[in-house]
Amino acid sequence: MGERYGAWPARYTLAGVTSFIFDLDGTLLDSVYQHVLSWRDALEAHDIRLSVWRIHRKIGMSGGLFTQGLLRETGLPLSTELIASLQAGHAEAYLSRMDQVRPLPGAQELLDHLTTVGIPWAVATSGRTTSAGAARRYLNIPDSVTVVTRDDVQHAKPDPDLFTEAASRLGVDIEDAVVVGDSVWDLLAARRARALGVGLLSGGYGEDELIRAGAYRVYADPLDLLAHLDEVGAR
Amino acid sequence: MGERYGAWPARYTLAGVTSFIFDLDGTLLDSVYQHVLSWRDALEAHDIRLSVWRIHRKIGMSGGLFTQGLLRETGLPLSTELIASLQAGHAEAYLSRMDQVRPLPGAQELLDHLTTVGIPWAVATSGRTTSAGAARRYLNIPDSVTVVTRDDVQHAKPDPDLFTEAASRLGVDIEDAVVVGDSVWDLLAARRARALGVGLLSGGYGEDELIRAGAYRVYADPLDLLAHLDEVGAR
Repeated sequence: MGERYGAWPARYTLAGVTSFIFDLDGTLLDSVYQHVLSWRDALEAHDIRLSVWRIHRKIGMSGGLFTQGLLRETGLPLSTELIASLQAGHAEAYLSRMDQVRPLPGAQELLDHLTTVGIPWAVATSGRTTSAGAARRYLNIPDSVTVVTRDDVQHAKPDPDLFTEAASRLGVDIEDAVVVGDSVWDLLAARRARALGVGLLSGGYGEDELIRAGAYRVYADPLDLLAHLDEVGAR
Repeated sequence: MGERYGAWPARYTLAGVTSFIFDLDGTLLDSVYQHVLSWRDALEAHDIRLSVWRIHRKIGMSGGLFTQGLLRETGLPLSTELIASLQAGHAEAYLSRMDQVRPLPGAQELLDHLTTVGIPWAVATSGRTTSAGAARRYLNIPDSVTVVTRDDVQHAKPDPDLFTEAASRLGVDIEDAVVVGDSVWDLLAARRARALGVGLLSGGYGEDELIRAGAYRVYADPLDLLAHLDEVGAR
């Protein structure tokens, strides 16, 4: 994988060491439903009607693919200006709902445990850098921990770039990494990055969807994953 | 089935005629996510923390089973007073979100089509009678149409009572009826009522969950069902 990211020093790669790369929304934070309704608000402000469940099914994709999907489902032409306005509308609506967001059960304990036992971990989110700020607002994430956002890569999920960039910064081989996510886009991106994909139900997807998308195992939430870390090869 | 509801005149039963019984939230109305976050508000007002996806997975059950499920997942004792307060809190929070609720695509067209071609149909919801009012607010439902609510039966879904009561009022045999719902509770109740269960994805559940719960077919939303009515035996 390394040749695509020639910039990182291969000599630092810890081959064979298990590491974890976490999605943020729905995986560490209980924020998916707030994001979903915030997109609905942004769309309705432009008289674009899309059922809420269809938005839910697209959450976690890159904004570009999300809007392409919109175009297909609504049949509307989407201009660059409209896309920018939708993204700004979503950001504003989500900001007004952020006080409802909570860490998922076990999220802090899981991260703290990995830090304690010396397993490298990072966060990789399709959200913008402001989302990284949100992660640090709800979770105690040391400044030294890598948080890769949409602003750091050319293509977001389901392209593998966010996860390969996170592995690069961790200095680990992505093929030894466990990618933990709640959406089919996380798992598709994990597969394309050749990482081991693990699904969580905490974003509201069904277990079968996650397994079909390539999840090696599916757990309820971070607390459930913490209780079964041995099953994904973490000592 | 008739002997359980001796009150209705069996001689009016239209044996062999296909009829439709619709769930409301997530099936005709795009309201599930608003209900989910309203329950979250009500629970948090009592310092009960429950992940949003877990609430989503219980939406559409009877309030009694919902609170029993809460009891199991949170380990908290739930008094009669607390249950009443949670239900009142949910109702208040949902009321404040009702302006965000929309009919699902094709819902009105589907109901109008059934009326036009003379296929009997009714609505059966685990919600209270106020929900029936909501249905009539967002959808043009003739006054003559049966809307059975939680207030009309002893046990709500996944008990079969709501659907058997609707069939009774329609004067049709429940075993000839098509029950359309978005949740596993609808489909479990349909199976227990010996009706043909049809699932819709519009409440946010995954297709496999609905099939495993007994759905004969699964469609995206009312519009998709309308386009495939022949597949469920409606002429």
